[in-house]
Amino acid sequence: MPRTDSFLESPEGTREEIMQATYFALCEHGYAELTIERIGEEFSKSKSLIYHHYGGKDDLLLDFLEFMLERFEGTVPFDDADDASDHLDAVLDHVLATPLPEDRREFGKAMVELRAQAAHDDRYRDHFTRHDRFFGERIASIIDSGIEEGVFGDVDPEAKATFLLTVVVGSMTQRVTSDQESTATVRGQVEEFVRATLLEGE
Amino acid sequence: MPRTDSFLESPEGTREEIMQATYFALCEHGYAELTIERIGEEFSKSKSLIYHHYGGKDDLLLDFLEFMLERFEGTVPFDDADDASDHLDAVLDHVLATPLPEDRREFGKAMVELRAQAAHDDRYRDHFTRHDRFFGERIASIIDSGIEEGVFGDVDPEAKATFLLTVVVGSMTQRVTSDQESTATVRGQVEEFVRATLLEGE
Repeated sequence: MPRTDSFLESPEGTREEIMQATYFALCEHGYAELTIERIGEEFSKSKSLIYHHYGGKDDLLLDFLEFMLERFEGTVPFDDADDASDHLDAVLDHVLATPLPEDRREFGKAMVELRAQAAHDDRYRDHFTRHDRFFGERIASIIDSGIEEGVFGDVDPEAKATFLLTVVVGSMTQRVTSDQESTATVRGQVEEFVRATLLEGE
Repeated sequence: MPRTDSFLESPEGTREEIMQATYFALCEHGYAELTIERIGEEFSKSKSLIYHHYGGKDDLLLDFLEFMLERFEGTVPFDDADDASDHLDAVLDHVLATPLPEDRREFGKAMVELRAQAAHDDRYRDHFTRHDRFFGERIASIIDSGIEEGVFGDVDPEAKATFLLTVVVGSMTQRVTSDQESTATVRGQVEEFVRATLLEGE
């Protein structure tokens, strides 16, 4: 399973090097202050290469989001657990980690800023629609397995997955936009939700 | 109970007129493209009045957020219900309304963009910390009343309120940044959560 940040340590090829430069520049400057010029400052090769591949900052950032989503797909532990309940726990522990490692915190800030672009930019909205759909489907599929295994009761997997994803989006947003550290509390309540409305025989 | 948008129809005094102009300009241009110049275009008096009161765009937006929070405090139905369970339902119905009225949708977009500024700007983070604290405390106080009334079981009001607030932040974020309309599903799952983990004797 590739680590999300392997391209940060040893990028392979020009595209990964541009992605690495974008990541660092985005975490350092934030979306509003980001420019291709500043991405170029983090890039070891000629800046003209970036201009050659991308028409502008948002072009580059949308490609960056696709790149990160693909890597994230490989990082969230969707495939390694004994039963569906443990599997769901592992995913939730990963996305609602407390405390959040510093590098994931910086990336989390960038993601909240990029998601906010979707409010007024359809290209970003298209991306986050696919992003949410991907995560929703993966969680629903785990719950579906749990129903087949008899671990979970006869619930609507899509509805549960939709809700859990909303909780994750809310928690990831709050943890970088508010000083109230609530992730551990939220994780505990998610546990209660799963126990009370998903687990069979509770 | 004042309506949030009364200042949009009949602003009283210069500050409310500036707030009205800010609201319209923010909904039209979004945060990134917003300038004092563009706010001035929505303002019926001299633009120099805006420059006289505010040092810059973020100064003005932070004041705008305070103004909106104060008005929102008066709009969310925190005080008119028969028992705590109905009271909580009314609040959740309001913040998780489906479908979202168009004017609240535009404002919701602006709020998601402004909250995202908190990732890299402490002044915005201070605001949203207070924002979250205010709503968390109000929800906790409703749950507290419900425990006293015997409607809710012996739960931790702060933990439940923290979780419900995170769900609301997640839902408000997703509904303006993704095409998947999930609010009705989320509202249904919140109902299940309340029934299964808050209501006495369930």
